[in-house]
Amino acid sequence: MNSSHQQYQQLSELSRRCAILKGVSSLLDWDQETYMPPNASANRAEQLKVMAGVIHREQTSPKFKESLASLIDLQSGTIFAKNLSDEQKAALREWRKDYLQLTALPSSFVEELAELQSQSIHAWRYAKKESAFHQFAPFLDRLVQMNRRKADLLGYEDHPYDALLNEYEPDMTTRQVTKLFHQIQSPLTTLLNKICQQPVEDQFLFGKWDHAKQMEFAHLLLDAMGYDKNHGRLDLTSHPFSSSSHPTDSRITSRIHPSSLMSHILAVLHEGGHSLYEMGLPVDLFGTPLCEARSLGIHESQSRWWETRIGLSQPFWSHFFPILQSTFPGQLSSIDLPAFYRAINRVKPSLIRIEADEVTYPLHVVLRFELEKALIEGSLTVRELPEAWNAKMEAYLAIKPQNIATGCLQDIHWAMGAFGYFPTYALGNLYAAHLFEAFEKQEPSWQARVAKGELAFIKKWLQEKIYQHGRRFETLELLKLATGKEFSEKAYLDYIQQKYSHIYSL
Amino acid sequence: MNSSHQQYQQLSELSRRCAILKGVSSLLDWDQETYMPPNASANRAEQLKVMAGVIHREQTSPKFKESLASLIDLQSGTIFAKNLSDEQKAALREWRKDYLQLTALPSSFVEELAELQSQSIHAWRYAKKESAFHQFAPFLDRLVQMNRRKADLLGYEDHPYDALLNEYEPDMTTRQVTKLFHQIQSPLTTLLNKICQQPVEDQFLFGKWDHAKQMEFAHLLLDAMGYDKNHGRLDLTSHPFSSSSHPTDSRITSRIHPSSLMSHILAVLHEGGHSLYEMGLPVDLFGTPLCEARSLGIHESQSRWWETRIGLSQPFWSHFFPILQSTFPGQLSSIDLPAFYRAINRVKPSLIRIEADEVTYPLHVVLRFELEKALIEGSLTVRELPEAWNAKMEAYLAIKPQNIATGCLQDIHWAMGAFGYFPTYALGNLYAAHLFEAFEKQEPSWQARVAKGELAFIKKWLQEKIYQHGRRFETLELLKLATGKEFSEKAYLDYIQQKYSHIYSL
Repeated sequence: MNSSHQQYQQLSELSRRCAILKGVSSLLDWDQETYMPPNASANRAEQLKVMAGVIHREQTSPKFKESLASLIDLQSGTIFAKNLSDEQKAALREWRKDYLQLTALPSSFVEELAELQSQSIHAWRYAKKESAFHQFAPFLDRLVQMNRRKADLLGYEDHPYDALLNEYEPDMTTRQVTKLFHQIQSPLTTLLNKICQQPVEDQFLFGKWDHAKQMEFAHLLLDAMGYDKNHGRLDLTSHPFSSSSHPTDSRITSRIHPSSLMSHILAVLHEGGHSLYEMGLPVDLFGTPLCEARSLGIHESQSRWWETRIGLSQPFWSHFFPILQSTFPGQLSSIDLPAFYRAINRVKPSLIRIEADEVTYPLHVVLRFELEKALIEGSLTVRELPEAWNAKMEAYLAIKPQNIATGCLQDIHWAMGAFGYFPTYALGNLYAAHLFEAFEKQEPSWQARVAKGELAFIKKWLQEKIYQHGRRFETLELLKLATGKEFSEKAYLDYIQQKYSHIYSL
Repeated sequence: MNSSHQQYQQLSELSRRCAILKGVSSLLDWDQETYMPPNASANRAEQLKVMAGVIHREQTSPKFKESLASLIDLQSGTIFAKNLSDEQKAALREWRKDYLQLTALPSSFVEELAELQSQSIHAWRYAKKESAFHQFAPFLDRLVQMNRRKADLLGYEDHPYDALLNEYEPDMTTRQVTKLFHQIQSPLTTLLNKICQQPVEDQFLFGKWDHAKQMEFAHLLLDAMGYDKNHGRLDLTSHPFSSSSHPTDSRITSRIHPSSLMSHILAVLHEGGHSLYEMGLPVDLFGTPLCEARSLGIHESQSRWWETRIGLSQPFWSHFFPILQSTFPGQLSSIDLPAFYRAINRVKPSLIRIEADEVTYPLHVVLRFELEKALIEGSLTVRELPEAWNAKMEAYLAIKPQNIATGCLQDIHWAMGAFGYFPTYALGNLYAAHLFEAFEKQEPSWQARVAKGELAFIKKWLQEKIYQHGRRFETLELLKLATGKEFSEKAYLDYIQQKYSHIYSL
């Protein structure tokens, strides 16, 4: 082992400690949402704060810096070490990015922002409940200002929003996202206008569904996906999420909706998709960026892949619908597969993003992206936000919120200070479509196999194309390597047009 | 606020960080036994190891030392600070003890011992399963040697075992324990010989008991005890335990035995007793020793109080037996209260400590104490252990293990390197009896109240006498303050003699 390898080894070990501690924090978060006694929340907040401090100290320690700087020039990014593999060089580039990101913000700024976020979440909850935007507005004002300062501290070339976006989707720019969203918006709106003329019967999806049977069916789906319960588990929470502390410990939660049958099923497929990604990261490289997910957008592509591309597909339900029928014979025996398929794919503009169908979902995201970008660049003031929100809702979805709870205060993201996060939700759908196009070519019999209940080969394909690479490649590079094609919105638009033209006989 | 108070405040804050981090580790332990996916154990071990390192670093940091040493002389224990309350002075004494204990062992020694313990547990599991003592013997040999070295490093005046005992029961000496155990052994053996002549019918306690109904009854008991589910929870594990990270987050687990009805009930009362103590510690002082349990012996006095003094008492069951009967009408309707009371208090020598009744339980502990003390002082070799164990089992309990799994390898404690722990199990019973004697005097109508299902006043009494004080007083001082009497084994012997003479009409 030469000296570069020893230095790389040392850096990996320091980084592994950080990864282990971050995993501990994840468990604190998971427990908070699942099993923590209700009155323990103040103590949990303190635990999370102390852990965040410990982790930050480890990540920015002089020892870590020295170790990293011995292998790569922190300023220029030039790699000194000569005998490292391409994989190791990629890891170094990612480590450097993380380090620069972490150290760009002074502790005083980070603490101020954390405090503001915590206060803002309280104010947002109150304002949302009481429909009192003015109670939240001063906090949002300060959050916008601080995020602008944050962008300045992090640095950017073109647009301050780039710096914020970069935290969630590192290899995308505001310009690229603007262009992509511009390309999809008008075709989606056009499609939507045609669809909206036609009613779809989906009332049979609502009613009283036995909880135990819903759980049984959920486990059956997870088993079929290849979700290994030795490395994960499923619990119920008020909002579904996935939480991973290590490829051997990647958990998901779902919710049982009071009346909607599909809510739990789609949540399990969605979170299961996130979790399979985490489980499939190269565990031998745990602690390095090579055992971390590429980006939030790629993560979302994995969840949406299973939720929409598989879980809302005809072949999937030609196998699983009979099972679902025999699980709920009283309620579903009189429904046939085409009616079920139409119902679960019903397109209807609604006020709430998280309940949106495949066609309207990206429009919700486009709206948020445009508004938060305008807030950051200063072309929109916080005071103007509710009106701007409503105007865009009317323009894109032809509906108007009755109040701010179903309008501009519906999501927690801005109250959490997360500007630049929203685009990843739509990018996930676009990435998934781009990947799926290649998958369909490489696995031409996928529909027949899925219709037989085979799903494991899908996970295997994703394992090879996405999971195993972690952060080795940049997003667009990863997408090109997986598909042999430059990424664009085309596959997504083709898919949406084709699927919904077919369903609605357009 | 004068300077002493500021220094005290600073020390409290440093100590609070440690307490918070220890709470995080507790959650890792709890999750490991409850909900962790099976294959995550290697990652969990690494998380626990890294956390232990972080905690040790905080506990022994130069800043902590400096802060402590500004208030109390680390060598002599003289308190410099003039304007502190008695409570604060007590906290300082405890902080100093902890610090000296922690820093007495060099890191290299701690790491070597941790590694040996981890290997020894594996060897113990294997040896126990295969009845192959020689597979474990070399590890036990090294553990004994290292514990002797540990005693030397920690320091002691009279007996090396003192230093080890001190880790679990700080205010007791080997001499005191030897004397106490000597006092109880012969009366217990005499009583046991008389009892063993008489058979007791308890077969009806074994059978198939509905799990959901067992859980329902357990929750009913916890509610009656005043166990607040907003600050805790009950889960099922293979071995019952309690785990507290903060007075607002104190959880218990129990097990459902395949056939024994009382196993779950007594475990819930036992662990509930531990947990009430943790919940009742003065939360405002969290982070200081004043919000920590006094000792393992006092802790065990709280669990045994609820398990045996309440949960095996006649008044308790005169209220709860009818409820238990209506929970399991098919199995218990033909049983009357006296028969039930006799059955749950059946005394019968058995090989396994954790299944032992009130009379034989302390004898199991005396045996272990004598053997581990002999190992540490070198008057017994590891090779001689199995034979010495069996000889004592015959002498004290008149039964002989068929193999080492039910003999000297039944408990994990030695494999974990925990020498000095066992006495606390018996001391807990003695302390509980001493406290209960005072309780009976101060609450003369306790039997009538408990017979009406009232239990909250018991918790209130313990809150005032024990919980609220944390580590403010030394064990014997605490017992005297609570009862007005010097602690001795007398109350325990009186109780046992009286109760079992009555049951067995001796």
